[in-house]
This record gives sequence, structure tokens and C-alpha cells, in this order.
Amino acid sequence: MPAYTLAELAEISGAEVSGDASLRIEGLATLQNARASQLSFLSNPKYEKHLQSTQAGAVILAPAMLQHCPVAALVHPDPYLVYARLSRLWERVPNAAGRQIHATAVIDPSVTLGENVLIEAGVVVHADARIGDGVVLGANTVVGFATSIGDNTRLFANVSVYHDVHIGRNCIVHSGVVIGSDGFGFAPHRGAWVKIAQLGGVIIEDEVEIGANSTIDRGALDPTLIGKGVKLDNQVQIAHNVVVGDHTVMAAGCAVAGSTQIGKHCVLAGKVGVAGHLTIVDHCHVTAMSMVIKNLTEPGVYSSGTGIQPNAQWRKTIGRLRQLDRYAARLKDIEKTLRLHEQENAREQDKQNEND
Amino acid sequence: MPAYTLAELAEISGAEVSGDASLRIEGLATLQNARASQLSFLSNPKYEKHLQSTQAGAVILAPAMLQHCPVAALVHPDPYLVYARLSRLWERVPNAAGRQIHATAVIDPSVTLGENVLIEAGVVVHADARIGDGVVLGANTVVGFATSIGDNTRLFANVSVYHDVHIGRNCIVHSGVVIGSDGFGFAPHRGAWVKIAQLGGVIIEDEVEIGANSTIDRGALDPTLIGKGVKLDNQVQIAHNVVVGDHTVMAAGCAVAGSTQIGKHCVLAGKVGVAGHLTIVDHCHVTAMSMVIKNLTEPGVYSSGTGIQPNAQWRKTIGRLRQLDRYAARLKDIEKTLRLHEQENAREQDKQNEND
Amino acid sequence: MPAYTLAELAEISGAEVSGDASLRIEGLATLQNARASQLSFLSNPKYEKHLQSTQAGAVILAPAMLQHCPVAALVHPDPYLVYARLSRLWERVPNAAGRQIHATAVIDPSVTLGENVLIEAGVVVHADARIGDGVVLGANTVVGFATSIGDNTRLFANVSVYHDVHIGRNCIVHSGVVIGSDGFGFAPHRGAWVKIAQLGGVIIEDEVEIGANSTIDRGALDPTLIGKGVKLDNQVQIAHNVVVGDHTVMAAGCAVAGSTQIGKHCVLAGKVGVAGHLTIVDHCHVTAMSMVIKNLTEPGVYSSGTGIQPNAQWRKTIGRLRQLDRYAARLKDIEKTLRLHEQENAREQDKQNEND
Repeated sequence: MPAYTLAELAEISGAEVSGDASLRIEGLATLQNARASQLSFLSNPKYEKHLQSTQAGAVILAPAMLQHCPVAALVHPDPYLVYARLSRLWERVPNAAGRQIHATAVIDPSVTLGENVLIEAGVVVHADARIGDGVVLGANTVVGFATSIGDNTRLFANVSVYHDVHIGRNCIVHSGVVIGSDGFGFAPHRGAWVKIAQLGGVIIEDEVEIGANSTIDRGALDPTLIGKGVKLDNQVQIAHNVVVGDHTVMAAGCAVAGSTQIGKHCVLAGKVGVAGHLTIVDHCHVTAMSMVIKNLTEPGVYSSGTGIQPNAQWRKTIGRLRQLDRYAARLKDIEKTLRLHEQENAREQDKQNEND
Repeated sequence: MPAYTLAELAEISGAEVSGDASLRIEGLATLQNARASQLSFLSNPKYEKHLQSTQAGAVILAPAMLQHCPVAALVHPDPYLVYARLSRLWERVPNAAGRQIHATAVIDPSVTLGENVLIEAGVVVHADARIGDGVVLGANTVVGFATSIGDNTRLFANVSVYHDVHIGRNCIVHSGVVIGSDGFGFAPHRGAWVKIAQLGGVIIEDEVEIGANSTIDRGALDPTLIGKGVKLDNQVQIAHNVVVGDHTVMAAGCAVAGSTQIGKHCVLAGKVGVAGHLTIVDHCHVTAMSMVIKNLTEPGVYSSGTGIQPNAQWRKTIGRLRQLDRYAARLKDIEKTLRLHEQENAREQDKQNEND
Repeated sequence: MPAYTLAELAEISGAEVSGDASLRIEGLATLQNARASQLSFLSNPKYEKHLQSTQAGAVILAPAMLQHCPVAALVHPDPYLVYARLSRLWERVPNAAGRQIHATAVIDPSVTLGENVLIEAGVVVHADARIGDGVVLGANTVVGFATSIGDNTRLFANVSVYHDVHIGRNCIVHSGVVIGSDGFGFAPHRGAWVKIAQLGGVIIEDEVEIGANSTIDRGALDPTLIGKGVKLDNQVQIAHNVVVGDHTVMAAGCAVAGSTQIGKHCVLAGKVGVAGHLTIVDHCHVTAMSMVIKNLTEPGVYSSGTGIQPNAQWRKTIGRLRQLDRYAARLKDIEKTLRLHEQENAREQDKQNEND
């Protein structure tokens, strides 16, 4: 494991040292598990209770927490950000160091290769592809013809990229991802389906991360577009001609149907579905497993579903839900009865008043 | 890009030319983006507004629209079908032209290979497989032993087909698809699970398309069956012994549990779940993210879920939903009270009548 | 097909023979389809009707069914268990028989290889990996550096295992599975997302099966943990730092968000979603497509969702659901009115009583 002094870590992350700046740190761990050679962090107040007893060599924390810290510290108003910045120092993924192309990789002679690429065993790159500087292609990954991959982008093992796809710089594409597969387009004809060839490609801008086994279809005519800084978790599905705005994130299992436009800085929690041909404005947050079936025209938090219940209660709830129509009718009847009673009472009152 | 005259395109598609039949067309584009060398189409009335100002060389449209068309046209009652038929002319996927087998492909000597196959780098075909005429196997795709792949079927890169699977003719299987993996079958025994070997294979009939990263399990004893002309979108899951009827389509993320039989010409929208051991008759349409937990015995449109709401409203809705039981009880109380009042009133009326 | 006498099958499975113990059996089939050389089984009472007319050579069944059986039998109180035990005899997956390593496999010299491994074409195993005895690595599968795979574990074709992952003994990992991809962790910073390197690995204990195209992310600091005997179906997603207890099963399409702890012997039916940072105790059963958004602190069956309805009825239900708030208000109004009436009646009664 590489080692850094606290002073070096402060320099890299923008934090300030409290305590022995020459302390050597060899890794990151949780407050509970960290040893004296390791750094930990306190960001979520829920874990404050573990600060007192931590065996970490140093802790990343906010200024207000410093007084409670029994060991050295890296102090910064946003400890989680400092943790994120330093976490990369101990990442164990192979990087390009000089051009390394495994003998079993099959790269068409027409391919343009940048400097310092790392191309692992079994990789296949088809004609006219362009591979930027510092790109890493994991074992058995396939890159289609006329596809381009920007500088310092990493594709892990077993990724499939079709033809005419453009991936930007500093992107991370995890194993099993498929980019540029056909959009789902068919014309109905006499009870069968005539395929519509999908002629648009895919454009993925810079700093995008795509989780394992996610799929992004090529457009029908125009390309499908994933904006800058977008982060997609595992098993996300993006249909043809979808546009995902910059810095939007989608948790695992989200699916967006064709031609929908999602704004910037949106958050789709796990397993959200979005129907086709919709528009979602910037800064919308959709909670887990919700189904978006209409435009979201205002920023805000949106939800659907029924929440979880013990099965016996849920059965009652669903039974009642099915009877809502009848309840509504009974409510109306009651209101009518009450109105009649009141009219009658009023009439009787009038009669009495007349009599009086 | 290949070029065709309007006359040729009319011949291929069954449409009629209006205007200059010798006009050369080099591609397809939307009404808004098409250039003078390109063909566009008008099918959805929503896009009619773009017809007047289109820069396309020609437009595919219905007879009634011809009077509004400022350029040449291909006229047909079903413009979407004509678009589908012509779209393939500009598709840029490699096809077999003479037998081409990459030197790095590993093909067991016992494999039967048809004419004009295209087998890309890194492909592995196990013993006793049969590969039909004109089949394309994309890079790093794996075909299991005793599996057969029908004429003119294409498997894109990184597809995994297990043993004893039969795929028909003219099928398209996208990257990351897995066909023939074990069905999920276990016998419970003393708190653990004893695996049931899955001995059935998979039969996929002709003209089927399977989207990226979809999975189709092999049957327990009898095979899992995907009927003719079925179209599955990305990340669809078909469990063991499911039968999917001809020409049924499933959008992305659908999952069908074991032994369920789905009829012909059904449509499952995105992320629909279907429980096991059910029967769904022909011509059922299930809307997105619905959960089918009982047989669908009549053709029609089916739905579940709550729709989307702003989170604050949704919380209220769900709160009320949980109280439905209490509302029902209150409604019953009120009705009882009203009945008592009416009985009392009736009694009083009787008394008065007697008194009168 | 291998053949066994009924006596041998009884010996292997722990059942007792009824009838000719020397009968040769060459395979398994359903009661309806079995031929005289095949064995069938009766476990689900629903299929009892097929027993009388079965053409099977023998049937696995419970003692109580023996009197209705027209052919030989293997008798055991748990016929399904016997079927499971015997099903493996006819499975057609290749096993290691002596060390077989395909010439195209790329195995780093630092890798430790056990006895009798079967490594198919195109496999890539990175530095410092340890491959146990009897391990099978399917074609084009990739194993990351410093990853270990326990004895007799099988990875099918096109599996991707990242670095620092530990898979136990007797596991089965199906095609397209990704293990050890990055957890979805980012620190927000000025409208963008700063990646948190995921430094924990994954630990998968013995006897685990993982279905096709499932994904299991590596932990942020500590490892993600899949307990002994866990069975995951296809397209399951396990996020970083999730703990899945021993012998828990998840059907296809389940997704568990980060840091959630699921107990032992739980069952998650198809497409269940579980939110992050939750605890689910042992022996919970969650029905299909439910969304778990709170801790489940008691064993039991849990559900969410609305069930399926014809679309027209569903629209009414959802319309009513949205009006629940107004219904609740109307109910309250009515109750108030009734209380006023009763107070008035009481007052009038008092007056009358006074008058009387």
C-alpha cells in the first residue's frame, strides 16, 4: 500500500493538519476498524459515537468536531469531499504506464491509438475506431468500428461498445456495459413487427460513469445523449434518443424509455421507471421504484407506490382500495340523505315558525 | 453512405413516387434535421408542423399529407412501415460476404458451419454446435455445445449461449445477452437449498430479437420457448419453462417468472413483472411497471401502481391509504347512525300520525 | 445419456425402491412426457392427475401416493428433494478431468492454479489470483488480480470478476455476472460529483449461486458480503457494503441498496427493491415487486403495490386514491353534522321533557 504523510494528504485534499504532520498514513478505514497507520473520516453525525474510541492514526473531520478528536486530524468544512479526494490514492486498478497492448488483443490496422494506452488480453477494436491517450481497455472488451473513446477513459473487462459511438474523456465504464445496441423500434404490419434499423449513435460526454451491466441504446436517427458528469449505477437502461442532462445521477435499476429528456442535476433513486416522450426539468428528485408517467415541469421531489406493509395488512389495504369506488358512492348517498334531512328539518322549522 | 434514387426506394418499399423519381437519396433523417440528399418521414401527426419547413430531399407520407409537402415524396398509406423497410438500407453493421472466420476464433472441429458465416475475433464455439448460413457471431461471443443457430441470425459481441439451445433463423441477439443459463430451482432441505439441475434447453423460433443484457433461462425438464417474431427489449428476464407466444413484445426491464405462459400478440410495457405459473391470453396489453399476479383471461389493457405525485402529496395519499380501514369503519358507523335516526323519525312520525 | 438402475438411484438419493430395482433409467422427464426409460416425480398435488397415465419407467413419490402409482417408484417423504439430488446425474455441463487449460487462455505467471482446473478458451486471469482445485472458468471469463476462487467453483462464460474478490467453494456463477465493480459513491461538490474510490472488495462464501447478469459491487472500505448458501437469481443487484445472510434467496431482478443488512433464510421474490442502510431480520419473506423502505424487525411476510386491474378500473381506483384526502375531509364534515344533529335532538328532547 502506498504511504503518505498527513502533510502530503492535506496538500492533496485542501484540508488542514491538526497534530503530527509527519505521520505516515497507509490506507483508509472506518472509525471502528482503522489501525494506527490508517486514516478515517467523520461525516455522518450518526457515527460521531465512534470518534472517541477510534484507533485511527488520523481522522478527516469538520472544525466543530476537532475538540472531540483523540488523534491527529485533517480538518475541512466538507470531510466527505476530502475523503473522496483522498480515496483514489489507495485504489488498486491498473493504469497505463507507457503503451501496453497485450499480444492477444485484436486491433484493426486502421485504428488510431493514443499515447500510453493499456489494452488488455482479448480486447477487440474494430476498424476506424479512435482510442485516446491514457485509455484503458479491460480484458475481452469489444469496441465497434468508427467509435471513439476520449483521453483517460477506462472501460473495464467485457464491455461491448457498438459502432458509431462517441465516449468522452475521463469516463469510467464498468464490466458488462453495452453501449450502442439497437433502440427498440418496430412498425406493426399484419400482426408482426418490421424492424426499424437504428441509425443514430450514442454520444457520452466527459466525466461520465456507467455502472456494471447498464445498457444505452443507439438513437433511431439522431444520437442518444448522456451529458457531462452524469453518473449511472448498475443495470440502468437508457432507451433510444433519450437525453440525460449534465450531472444527473441514476441509482441501480432505473430505466428511461425512448425520446425522454431528463434535465440537469436530477436524481433518480433505485429502480425508477420513466415513460417515453416525457420531459423532466432540472433538479427533479424521484424516490425509489417510482414510475414517472407524465412530464415533471417543476423541480421537486416525486414519488409513487404504496410503501411496504405486513402482507396481511396489505391485503386489507388493497381490498379497501378496490372498494374505493363503492365507498365514494356511499359517501355521496350519506351526504344526500343529510341534505334531505336538513331540508326537511328546515321545512318543519318553517312550519313550526308559521304555527308559532 | 449508399445512395438510391427515389424510384429505387419506391420499388423496395412499395410506396409511390411524387416528384422527381431520379432524385438521389443518401440517408434518413428527421424532418427538422434532413438535408437535400436525405429522406425523411411523417407518421406521427404531432410532427406535421415540421413538414412545411423541411429541407429534406423527399418525405415519406400518407396520401392526405401530400398536398402540404413542399418537396418530393414517397406516398403510402402506412408511412411508418415504409420508413421501417427503407431504414435497413443505411444500417452500418457488418455482414458476411463469403466465409470469414477470424484467426483468433476457437471453433471445435465437430462444429457444423454454414455458408457465408462471419465469425469475429475471440469467438468460442463448443463441440457439436451447428451454425447456419449467413450467421454473424460478434467478437468474444460464446456458443455452447450442441447448440444450433439458424440461418442469417446475428449475435452481437459478448453474447453467451449455453449448451442445448436452439435459435431460429433471422434472429438478432444483442450484446451481453445470456441464453440457456440455469433456471432458479432449489429444493429446501434443513434450512439450506439443494440445487435442481436444469436439464431442459431453450427454443427460440425465427425472427426473434433479444435486447442487450437480457437473460433467458433453460427449462427444468422441458425447454423454455420463445415464439416466432417475439421482440424483447434490453434487460428482459425470462425464467425457466416460460412460453412466450408469437409476435409478443416486451419493453425493457420486464421479468416473467417460471412456467408462465404468455399468449400471442401481447404487449408488456417497460418493467412489467409477471408472477410464475400464470396464463395470459392473446392480445393482452400490460402498462409499464405493472405487476401481474393472476391469470389474465380476457384480452385488454391492464395496469397497477399508483402513478406519480409530488412527494408531499404522495405521503398524504399513502397515509390516507393506510387509514382506509378506519375510514371504512367510520362510514359504516355513520350509515348505522343514519338508519337509527330514520327509524326513530319513522317511529315519531307514526306516533304523530297516531296523535293526529 | 448416462444410465442408472433404480437401485443405484435409491442409493444415491436416500429413497426406497418399489418394484424392479434393476430397471435402467436414462433421464428425467415430467409425468406427461416421460418414456419407459425415464424417471419422473410427483411432488405438487396439482399434478397427481397425471400419475395414472404416466409412461415413465418409475416415479419419485411420497409413501401415501404409492398405491396410485402404476409403475415402479422411488419412495421418500420428500420427493422434490430426491428429484433435486438425482437431477444432477443428467446435467450436461463440462467438468474438469485432469488439468485442461486452453491454449488461448491468458494466465499471469503469478497465478496459483489448483488441481484439475478446466480453463476454457479466451479466459484471462490477472496477477496474484488463486484458482482452487476443480475450478471451471468458462470461455472469455475474466478474473481480476489478487482474486481467489475456491475449490470446485464454476464460473460460466463471459463472467467479470474484479480484483480483490474472494469467492468460496462449490459456488456457481452464471454468464454475464459482474462481481467487484465499484459501489456507487460520490461526494457532491459545486453541482458535480467527486468519485469516491471503492477500496473494499467482495466476499462470497461457500455454496452460493449467482444468476446470469447479476451484479455485486465492491465495498467502499469494508467488503460487501454474501453469506453461505445464498442463491441469487438473474439480474439481481447488490450494492456496496450490503450483507446478505446465509441461505437467503432472491428471485430475478431484486436490487438491494448500499449498506443494507439482510438476515438469514429470507426470501425476496422477483423485482423486490430494498432501500439503503436498512436492517431486515432473519426469516422475512417479501412478495414480488415490493419496495422495502424501512427496517423489517419481525419475521413475516411483507408486501407493497396495488395489484393488477383492467386499465379502466385502475384509472378509477387511482382517481379515487388521489381524492382520498377530500373523502377524509367529507367524512369528518358528516361526522360533525351528525354530532350537531344529535346535540340538537338532545336539546330538543330536553326541552320536550321539560315541557312534558
